[in-house]
Amino acid sequence: MPIMMDADALTVFMKDVFKQVADDFAIDHVGETDLTTRLLVGDQHLRPGGTISGPSIFALADVSAYLMTLARIGPKALAVTTNCSIDFMRKPAAGVDLISRTRLLKLGKLLSVCDVLVFSEGMDTPVARASLTYAIPPK
Amino acid sequence: MPIMMDADALTVFMKDVFKQVADDFAIDHVGETDLTTRLLVGDQHLRPGGTISGPSIFALADVSAYLMTLARIGPKALAVTTNCSIDFMRKPAAGVDLISRTRLLKLGKLLSVCDVLVFSEGMDTPVARASLTYAIPPK
Amino acid sequence: MPIMMDADALTVFMKDVFKQVADDFAIDHVGETDLTTRLLVGDQHLRPGGTISGPSIFALADVSAYLMTLARIGPKALAVTTNCSIDFMRKPAAGVDLISRTRLLKLGKLLSVCDVLVFSEGMDTPVARASLTYAIPPK
Amino acid sequence: MPIMMDADALTVFMKDVFKQVADDFAIDHVGETDLTTRLLVGDQHLRPGGTISGPSIFALADVSAYLMTLARIGPKALAVTTNCSIDFMRKPAAGVDLISRTRLLKLGKLLSVCDVLVFSEGMDTPVARASLTYAIPPK
Repeated sequence: MPIMMDADALTVFMKDVFKQVADDFAIDHVGETDLTTRLLVGDQHLRPGGTISGPSIFALADVSAYLMTLARIGPKALAVTTNCSIDFMRKPAAGVDLISRTRLLKLGKLLSVCDVLVFSEGMDTPVARASLTYAIPPK
Repeated sequence: MPIMMDADALTVFMKDVFKQVADDFAIDHVGETDLTTRLLVGDQHLRPGGTISGPSIFALADVSAYLMTLARIGPKALAVTTNCSIDFMRKPAAGVDLISRTRLLKLGKLLSVCDVLVFSEGMDTPVARASLTYAIPPK
Repeated sequence: MPIMMDADALTVFMKDVFKQVADDFAIDHVGETDLTTRLLVGDQHLRPGGTISGPSIFALADVSAYLMTLARIGPKALAVTTNCSIDFMRKPAAGVDLISRTRLLKLGKLLSVCDVLVFSEGMDTPVARASLTYAIPPK
Repeated sequence: MPIMMDADALTVFMKDVFKQVADDFAIDHVGETDLTTRLLVGDQHLRPGGTISGPSIFALADVSAYLMTLARIGPKALAVTTNCSIDFMRKPAAGVDLISRTRLLKLGKLLSVCDVLVFSEGMDTPVARASLTYAIPPK
């Protein structure tokens, strides 16, 4: 089960395909069935009181599962999310990045399934969990 | 079961609390157990190819359930999403707004539960469906 | 968009394929994009205190989405659930059947998506809501 | 963060409260934030072709999250599932038990959140994943 794209290849691809948001994310680690991603938290992600918005946490989980899938199938921009379930469990810490730890649970011909835990950097209890299904475009 | 905030009151509240994104949304209708919201689609919501990003659709569903809940409990900024399940079913049409139709399924003391159908304006098959739980802050 | 199997055809098929549980369910109505099913509540579905078990409510939602899909694609026993999200919102009433109202939100070549509201018979607030995705076997 | 009920105490409690189904399950391990449970697969769980029914897999995930929560809060029969999201990813192997591995992600005053991976015994790729929220009754 080889890795088709490493962190550098995924970063170049993301900046090419998602120009508007690629600078929000960094890739810390790419493994065969795990991937660590980071939301570089900026003002555009914040809500009053300094908390990080739900859509920003969703976006981190979504891009993480996308990158995990592409790491294994190669650069297919047209993979699309078909389902996401997300639980918001704790308020993120202020002033630090969000780290997402993704596991690839299934990689089929048509679908990939990942789950994701999101942490405030330096904390060991998760801010959120998500599970996502991506539809893989046919060859 | 009275409405505590109408469309005007919700709009003022949203612009006050969510300055950064309030201009993205408009409220078309507020009922006792239903609410119609609109994503005023702009460049910031688009992905290459003209499709609307998943996080933008999530944000519409999330704000819709929030506004439906506040319409009934009044201006409590600290209501927070605890869970969302979302299915992305069709590619949005290009060049039109997204309309979300929200139903309030449960309004308890601690939790509200809504479901949402999201349509491209003028289409009768949904782009996405979502269900969301909000935790209501204690009095 | 024709109906491929009506209530009688679905009932015969269900009794043939799911012998062990088919007698638990009845089909009240089959439409092009909606279906009404009934859990004939018996002792095997109850928990102490007279409430209906979560797995029984899940089973009703699951069979409902399955029957809605088969109503449109014909008798394909091998359609399988790939995802379900379910919210349990209220305690079912004692001594009455559960009624599920299913909507077909998408019928693609590979996937169908339904949502379901579950009611205690005679009540107008739902006990549960669920959304389900079925994978349709290739021809 | 002590364990309030160990495997023996949970087993006795389960047999007392869920007489009808307690014999379907066994508890292999109880930790502070993890729990391993087993579905003792019998004819009542099977579908034609020897596969295990979706409601049986749901029931395993549901009882696992319930037991994980009770392990930490003590014997409160009235904890109820409020939400479950489940992905069915692979067909279970024939003739072996199902093993569920549960993680406690949050234990609040009002809610617990767990996720669960379900395996056919002896396999290292999961049959299903689930995430569940339980409402904890007030003291």
